[in-house]
Amino acid sequence: MVQLGLVGLGKMGFNMRERLRAAGHEVVGYDRNEAVSDSSSLADMVSKLAAPRMVWIMVPAGGPTRDTVDELGELLSEGDLVIDGGNSKFTDDKRNGEVLAAKKIGYLDCGVSGGIWGKENGYGLMVGGAAGDVERAMPIFDALRPDGPREEGFSHAGSVGAGHYAKMIHNGIEYGIMQAYAEGFELMEAAKVIDDVPAVIKGWQRGTVVRSWLLDLLVRALDEDPELDDLEGYVEDSGEGRWTLEEAINNAVPAPVISAALFARFSSRQKDSAAMRAVAALRNQFGGHAVKKVGQ
Amino acid sequence: MVQLGLVGLGKMGFNMRERLRAAGHEVVGYDRNEAVSDSSSLADMVSKLAAPRMVWIMVPAGGPTRDTVDELGELLSEGDLVIDGGNSKFTDDKRNGEVLAAKKIGYLDCGVSGGIWGKENGYGLMVGGAAGDVERAMPIFDALRPDGPREEGFSHAGSVGAGHYAKMIHNGIEYGIMQAYAEGFELMEAAKVIDDVPAVIKGWQRGTVVRSWLLDLLVRALDEDPELDDLEGYVEDSGEGRWTLEEAINNAVPAPVISAALFARFSSRQKDSAAMRAVAALRNQFGGHAVKKVGQ
Amino acid sequence: MVQLGLVGLGKMGFNMRERLRAAGHEVVGYDRNEAVSDSSSLADMVSKLAAPRMVWIMVPAGGPTRDTVDELGELLSEGDLVIDGGNSKFTDDKRNGEVLAAKKIGYLDCGVSGGIWGKENGYGLMVGGAAGDVERAMPIFDALRPDGPREEGFSHAGSVGAGHYAKMIHNGIEYGIMQAYAEGFELMEAAKVIDDVPAVIKGWQRGTVVRSWLLDLLVRALDEDPELDDLEGYVEDSGEGRWTLEEAINNAVPAPVISAALFARFSSRQKDSAAMRAVAALRNQFGGHAVKKVGQ
Amino acid sequence: MVQLGLVGLGKMGFNMRERLRAAGHEVVGYDRNEAVSDSSSLADMVSKLAAPRMVWIMVPAGGPTRDTVDELGELLSEGDLVIDGGNSKFTDDKRNGEVLAAKKIGYLDCGVSGGIWGKENGYGLMVGGAAGDVERAMPIFDALRPDGPREEGFSHAGSVGAGHYAKMIHNGIEYGIMQAYAEGFELMEAAKVIDDVPAVIKGWQRGTVVRSWLLDLLVRALDEDPELDDLEGYVEDSGEGRWTLEEAINNAVPAPVISAALFARFSSRQKDSAAMRAVAALRNQFGGHAVKKVGQ
Repeated sequence: MVQLGLVGLGKMGFNMRERLRAAGHEVVGYDRNEAVSDSSSLADMVSKLAAPRMVWIMVPAGGPTRDTVDELGELLSEGDLVIDGGNSKFTDDKRNGEVLAAKKIGYLDCGVSGGIWGKENGYGLMVGGAAGDVERAMPIFDALRPDGPREEGFSHAGSVGAGHYAKMIHNGIEYGIMQAYAEGFELMEAAKVIDDVPAVIKGWQRGTVVRSWLLDLLVRALDEDPELDDLEGYVEDSGEGRWTLEEAINNAVPAPVISAALFARFSSRQKDSAAMRAVAALRNQFGGHAVKKVGQ
Repeated sequence: MVQLGLVGLGKMGFNMRERLRAAGHEVVGYDRNEAVSDSSSLADMVSKLAAPRMVWIMVPAGGPTRDTVDELGELLSEGDLVIDGGNSKFTDDKRNGEVLAAKKIGYLDCGVSGGIWGKENGYGLMVGGAAGDVERAMPIFDALRPDGPREEGFSHAGSVGAGHYAKMIHNGIEYGIMQAYAEGFELMEAAKVIDDVPAVIKGWQRGTVVRSWLLDLLVRALDEDPELDDLEGYVEDSGEGRWTLEEAINNAVPAPVISAALFARFSSRQKDSAAMRAVAALRNQFGGHAVKKVGQ
Repeated sequence: MVQLGLVGLGKMGFNMRERLRAAGHEVVGYDRNEAVSDSSSLADMVSKLAAPRMVWIMVPAGGPTRDTVDELGELLSEGDLVIDGGNSKFTDDKRNGEVLAAKKIGYLDCGVSGGIWGKENGYGLMVGGAAGDVERAMPIFDALRPDGPREEGFSHAGSVGAGHYAKMIHNGIEYGIMQAYAEGFELMEAAKVIDDVPAVIKGWQRGTVVRSWLLDLLVRALDEDPELDDLEGYVEDSGEGRWTLEEAINNAVPAPVISAALFARFSSRQKDSAAMRAVAALRNQFGGHAVKKVGQ
Repeated sequence: MVQLGLVGLGKMGFNMRERLRAAGHEVVGYDRNEAVSDSSSLADMVSKLAAPRMVWIMVPAGGPTRDTVDELGELLSEGDLVIDGGNSKFTDDKRNGEVLAAKKIGYLDCGVSGGIWGKENGYGLMVGGAAGDVERAMPIFDALRPDGPREEGFSHAGSVGAGHYAKMIHNGIEYGIMQAYAEGFELMEAAKVIDDVPAVIKGWQRGTVVRSWLLDLLVRALDEDPELDDLEGYVEDSGEGRWTLEEAINNAVPAPVISAALFARFSSRQKDSAAMRAVAALRNQFGGHAVKKVGQ
């Protein structure tokens, strides 16, 4: 059993602490929210850990994670190890790793998938960093990952940054898969050929080529709301889809499906599209085609 | 100077009669709207034409055009010639041509581009049918097409159906071009880097690679409404874009730009997207991500 | 236990006969290939069945299936039931159902998913037709579908045609999902950030959001050929993707992901693209940009 | 008449010197290629200009332009003005402007469109920078831009960077327009309905909605090579398309057409697609579908 400092006890971090403790590990959590925190400050958390220490960061990507890395750089000592399990952009990992390497503190980046189900099912993990550091943190990874063969729920993807890179691609793929199901759902709803669309989708769960965990979740959502009409078709994006598309651009790799899925989210958030106003204006100019005026 | 029966005196047909008469041709128009019609019925129109007759159909595509062809098949005689200048699907032309050929009446299909500007500028024409029939109708085509070399505003595209096929592809391309300008417009509006977006677009009219007639029309629209905010971003489609995409499917030709432009129009007409409700539902299921509930 | 005539003993039909017999049903198969056939002709097969008969068609979609329906219409009697389990277009089902209904023979269309794994895992089934006919064939469906709750591997999607409609949409979704994984794979291969791409993909099998049966198959393919370089990137399409896109057009439903996946297949089969020759020609015209000449 | 230093006398710079001199301006050019240079070094060029000087940079974007700005910062004096007419990314302009502002040297960025035709037709210009600087350089802009109203071939788009931003968007639009024509061309070539595809395209030059300068160039290319089969369908991209897509991502603006056009270029340069190998592998895994093995 190992000891772990865990910074960030939000939805994900809180659940991970549960899962780690259930596996018998000692977790000293820190969160600004005193109600869930095991320590009064980051320094307090560090003081409760025995060297060589291992600290898992689970705070929002970007500034908060970089700041936490910087603070830990001040608080930890040579030979300690930091693992960023948040959704950082892979380019941040290089910077974070260098900040800590300058103090001879190890650094791993760990992409984590599984959402709120991970507490129960385990989390899919993709790790970047030095082999020795990965080996050292393996008890933690083994506790967090799903049961079954390690290599089916965990990978050491490469050097620092590779874990978040793999997670980024994972999420880009996820955007595409979700959109594929979504287009099929809309088409069945629109065409009025299928009498019971939720029943058809439920019937895809076993034996079909499209069976998947996301399909199971879609079935679950349709069980709760068969036409999904309690929701608005408004979808946020959280960064990884954009980064995946940036990487497609940087590597001259065509990514028509992932980009289409991302753009569908952008469109879903627009009340009115300036582009389509321009198209409407053009049609009106050349053809005298009717247009919808605002307020009509 | 020749004599022409013209069926359909709507926005397009009315203007064409004007242009043909201005060129010195004799036009006997027929329209159900007595206020604009030169004859009291299709039969009356035919009776006013000297054999061998030439009749131009300019009524809505589909049923109305097919019905008009059928009626003309009854009213006209061997050696007469019918030209369909409407927006018929190219597959209708085969049928229309055969109906008339059975009575030894000639048939041409003519794709017409230029919208409400055609009366003044002339219409771009794409014709399908037998060379002899094309030759015979050339005075009409020459009057309708723009000034300048005939081959720059007119083509004999092939046998019956080829004219509307060419027009269909023309419109598919048009969808793509309009969407390209529209995306650029939206991006400039959104990015807030350009101080005066209409001025930039106006400045593209001369010398640039993207100069075009559609660009001129966009400038015109922006002159009237600099942010295009009197309009809603709601865009109809009139068939040719869909048919172009069908043909891409039938011929296994990738058409990502034309399909994207068509789908953008479909999306523009949706208040809420079932697909995006499905994506929102999925995100909510796996991540506990916040969703917009209806009424919120 | 029931008795079934089974027409078509190719890759799919042969396996289905095995699975049905293993479940204790009596199958009289017919195939032109004598080596696998249980009967010498369609008539011979029918003669071996006790009325009221049930016959499953598993021959190529289109002409072969329609011809088989027509022949069965001659051979079968009032009260018999025909099930088309092939990949027919849903529009064929209306025609097939009517041919048989005229002779008071029942008709069901059954979309079947699962490929070569179905024999072992069971097949996902989507059925269209009358409830009474569905009920009657249920022992067959129960034998073919996977173990587990019936509604997770079987659906009665609606009236005649709805089964193949559901299967068509299923396959459209499948195109999108496969392309999403494929884009992610290519990007990881290209970016050279991940040291061991197959290991990352294998590590997605448990716990992640993108886990699926298709992912398991991708892992299997990568186990056999880690860079997939024994294959060419040449991908056929079998109809359902095209039909799904046609239906998107017909119903004005945006389907950017499914269309992108289909177009990627079209592109994969082109040695050289006429479209891209046109773009190259344009760049050369305005910019004097270098172009690749044939033979260079 | 004004005096201008011009750095970079390649394809574009050389032509611009011609056009400026034809308009009566004095141009002192510098290029590493002595055969075309008017001066022996950048310093020599500067020494030949009377203060306050105006220098136009027309060298490759990125490093070469930044280096030239840095060198000019050393050579020029307070009150001089530098104009970057190359294809710099707009983010470079901020940096370049600041380098020069630190020495009280003015800076304008000027997006230039028109390619090799600009010498004769004039160049479309989009300028970013301070109004006073723009005013000062106006004689140069007026000489370079096409005849006709200034605002139809020139715009002051905004502050430093806005000129190249406008040019970037211009090129993104250009990608989309070219691809739209290209898809239409390929479809007409493939469908075999049109007898003479080049004649149809030539006939679109007058009167149609899709008439444009790019269309005129396509006609020109087809006059030289009616099936464009002297070329390979291999298309480079020069940066602006990628940057436009990055900006779409950054601003959450859907850009399906521009991205599709960019991805089509990426695909055109691939001998074999890793993504499509993955799709082929998947189809083979689940369906036993035939695949093309390398070497077959």
